[in-house]
Amino acid sequence: MADAASIQKTIDTYMACFTADDKDGWLDCFAEGAWIEDPVGTPRRTGRDDIGAFWGESHGLADSIELRSSGITTIIGSEAAFTMQARPSLAGATYVMDIIDVMTFDDHAKITTMRAFYDPAAMRPATD
Amino acid sequence: MADAASIQKTIDTYMACFTADDKDGWLDCFAEGAWIEDPVGTPRRTGRDDIGAFWGESHGLADSIELRSSGITTIIGSEAAFTMQARPSLAGATYVMDIIDVMTFDDHAKITTMRAFYDPAAMRPATD
Repeated sequence: MADAASIQKTIDTYMACFTADDKDGWLDCFAEGAWIEDPVGTPRRTGRDDIGAFWGESHGLADSIELRSSGITTIIGSEAAFTMQARPSLAGATYVMDIIDVMTFDDHAKITTMRAFYDPAAMRPATD
Repeated sequence: MADAASIQKTIDTYMACFTADDKDGWLDCFAEGAWIEDPVGTPRRTGRDDIGAFWGESHGLADSIELRSSGITTIIGSEAAFTMQARPSLAGATYVMDIIDVMTFDDHAKITTMRAFYDPAAMRPATD
């Protein structure tokens, strides 16, 4: 099992690469055969190609998107739950959406599953 | 499927009864045959008797325990993820621990499964 420091590093890299528009770095956070359910309730996307398609869809919605940790990260064994904000910018305006992510990891601290709890309707203008 | 308002009401009742030391009211939030994993990584407890035993253990650790919502609640279909603080008081001092709860619900908005992500070692003195 990966240790907590390695899992934390993957989570940090995941957010940093997403924010920096580094698609390959972000995809490298996932194990082969990983799946994501983003947001929860939508069909799961399995493997690098389908997860890469999700990247394209989400980044196509905004000029840029920052993922920012928002205070709570709990790593237990090979699982983690954490809070973050997605902060898309569009035509000079920045918006904020709260997300709770639940992930599992393999022995190399690569993401094997990811479920993102959020409600797109709860997006609001950023005030900070 | 229960609607989001009914699920929100169960979550509110769950926190209020736990805080008010209302064990029966808290147990009534669960469906028959429900299980909890609290914290994640410990054995699951299934059914009213075993979940009731968990209540006794957790309330035995402090003079009182407040559960307080801490800002993020997302309800999608029959699932919810939310953040809260457990605020135990012991010998006049109050402590704080962040929790991410993930729950599923039946058609009557009763809890069918609950997983609580937190690290007891991250407990800290309350400053608010």
